[in-house]
Amino acid sequence: MSEYVRIALDAMGGDNAPSEQVKGAVEALQADERVFVILVGREVIIRGELSKHQYPKDRVRIVDAPEVIETGEPPVKAIQSKRNSSLVMGLQLVHQGEADAFVSSGSTGAVLVGGQAIVKKIRGIQRAPLAPLIPTANGASLLIDCGASVDARPSHLVQFAVIGSIYMKNVMGIENPRVGLVNIGAEEEKGNALCKETYPLLSACPDINFIGNVEARDIPYGAADVYVTEAFVGNVILKMYEGVGSVMLKEIKGALMSSLKSKIGALLIKGALKTTLKKFDSGSYGGAPLLGLKGLVVKTHGSAKANEVKNTILQCLQFKEEDVNGKIQEYLAAQKTAEGET
Amino acid sequence: MSEYVRIALDAMGGDNAPSEQVKGAVEALQADERVFVILVGREVIIRGELSKHQYPKDRVRIVDAPEVIETGEPPVKAIQSKRNSSLVMGLQLVHQGEADAFVSSGSTGAVLVGGQAIVKKIRGIQRAPLAPLIPTANGASLLIDCGASVDARPSHLVQFAVIGSIYMKNVMGIENPRVGLVNIGAEEEKGNALCKETYPLLSACPDINFIGNVEARDIPYGAADVYVTEAFVGNVILKMYEGVGSVMLKEIKGALMSSLKSKIGALLIKGALKTTLKKFDSGSYGGAPLLGLKGLVVKTHGSAKANEVKNTILQCLQFKEEDVNGKIQEYLAAQKTAEGET
Repeated sequence: MSEYVRIALDAMGGDNAPSEQVKGAVEALQADERVFVILVGREVIIRGELSKHQYPKDRVRIVDAPEVIETGEPPVKAIQSKRNSSLVMGLQLVHQGEADAFVSSGSTGAVLVGGQAIVKKIRGIQRAPLAPLIPTANGASLLIDCGASVDARPSHLVQFAVIGSIYMKNVMGIENPRVGLVNIGAEEEKGNALCKETYPLLSACPDINFIGNVEARDIPYGAADVYVTEAFVGNVILKMYEGVGSVMLKEIKGALMSSLKSKIGALLIKGALKTTLKKFDSGSYGGAPLLGLKGLVVKTHGSAKANEVKNTILQCLQFKEEDVNGKIQEYLAAQKTAEGET
Repeated sequence: MSEYVRIALDAMGGDNAPSEQVKGAVEALQADERVFVILVGREVIIRGELSKHQYPKDRVRIVDAPEVIETGEPPVKAIQSKRNSSLVMGLQLVHQGEADAFVSSGSTGAVLVGGQAIVKKIRGIQRAPLAPLIPTANGASLLIDCGASVDARPSHLVQFAVIGSIYMKNVMGIENPRVGLVNIGAEEEKGNALCKETYPLLSACPDINFIGNVEARDIPYGAADVYVTEAFVGNVILKMYEGVGSVMLKEIKGALMSSLKSKIGALLIKGALKTTLKKFDSGSYGGAPLLGLKGLVVKTHGSAKANEVKNTILQCLQFKEEDVNGKIQEYLAAQKTAEGET
């Protein structure tokens, strides 16, 4: 069974669970023969969903998890009290080495807390960042960190830059990924205390391709492959992206429906517009990995559909095959050696 | 002359100066009889521009300023060395009481530095925030602070909330403006150290209508009338707004031009789309005031056209007539009294 990449999927987490989760799993199984899916959740419900599909039965396992963590629950308490939830049991599978990765569309807070508490950080990793891929005019960039640990220190940001680069190179196939520090001006001396202290450290870091400060305005244009920032700002960027995009689309749709003339026009542009907007569909690149843990944990959108679930599972495949965690550990070991020498 | 509101306009600052600046001034003069404009810049050039228009000559004055501060110049040095620039001379007019307000599309850094150094802060104001009006699905909201002073303290944010509320009530006519603290979650205990310390202070502040935390996703929907945040995050929000908006429009335009069919469709939807997008045109509400100074200083976009210049001048009219600075001073005096009593 070792030739497979074993992905534990939270079948119960998310707005469209379990139907889209199971559908996405089936699509991933069909797309790549190396995929082995462990569906974690209420067994009866999962079996019911699976019966709707044709799928390779020898690459699917079900782990019965009777409990479900709801979105509104306080994360720490939920993780501690619901030991038989799909989320906790899925993370346990990674911790015990029975799965290579865990994918969930459930509560972000619970995934973040549970990932760190159950799967645990790689030794030497100061903070495990949540790093979503954000769509840009040129493809996708990694925004690291968007997690829950705010008030980061400069050394955290340097680690984010290195592990973000390892991820983009190995999972997304980008050679020598450009690292930008999110700041409010282009010059080195700009920004808050965190940026000013981080800039020279990134400049001096031999393991990354640092291109300097990047202003938020240039993020959607794809000015860098890895945008390094602390989690508060990362969250604001991610949510502004979603908010501005959704308001604009809503307003444009309203405009298109405002008269008969515009409705006819809308029919004519529909195809072209759909292709363009697809580029900005955050689900098309898969979910947000929680990096620096001993196994891979990926958070998909709460609203994830089958396509995002499928893409995320394939993303996990790449992560495992390219041994991203091995490369992170090599970096940490080399850094430790260098520190020992000085 | 005291019935007039005297606005000093930097005729030389901005990508479209001086033609759009002078045109905007003329339009403002025509729109409201209380407007008196002092055009600051190279007299010969200004006279040339003015000669293209019909305007009330008794409400225009020209102040010759031979120097111009360019966008790329380091602000502090530029303000100190170019004493005869349109920017410095315009700010001096406010300082000397010869103008009620100064409007510039020039270098943001120089306006911020010059405003504080020359016009100076009202006694009791800890920091002078730059507070642009940002378009939302419901009108416009004030984003305070987007200035250059990062690493703010909780007490700064409370002052921003109060003076932002005074501005929105008196200049934009919004009764009991809703104040939201920009944060990464809705609950009180969410966020970084700054947010956690600021939240209870805003809750306890009797001078504002605090509605709690607001996530960035809800900003473009107009979830609050005043969004309070420190300048680093404010800058990121503002620039994400611009960046996402401009990338999406560019991509949509590209899609509309991609085939004959879509081009015909584009013609049919043009009118409806234009009306919608106008709602999101940041220039339609005027520029960003630098609040808390002894006189009003307003920064318009570098790319401002006549319409934005005109709207900004009319915004200054409202600021003066409603005595916004008087109301800020009343608040500061009441606060001092309250402190004295405890």
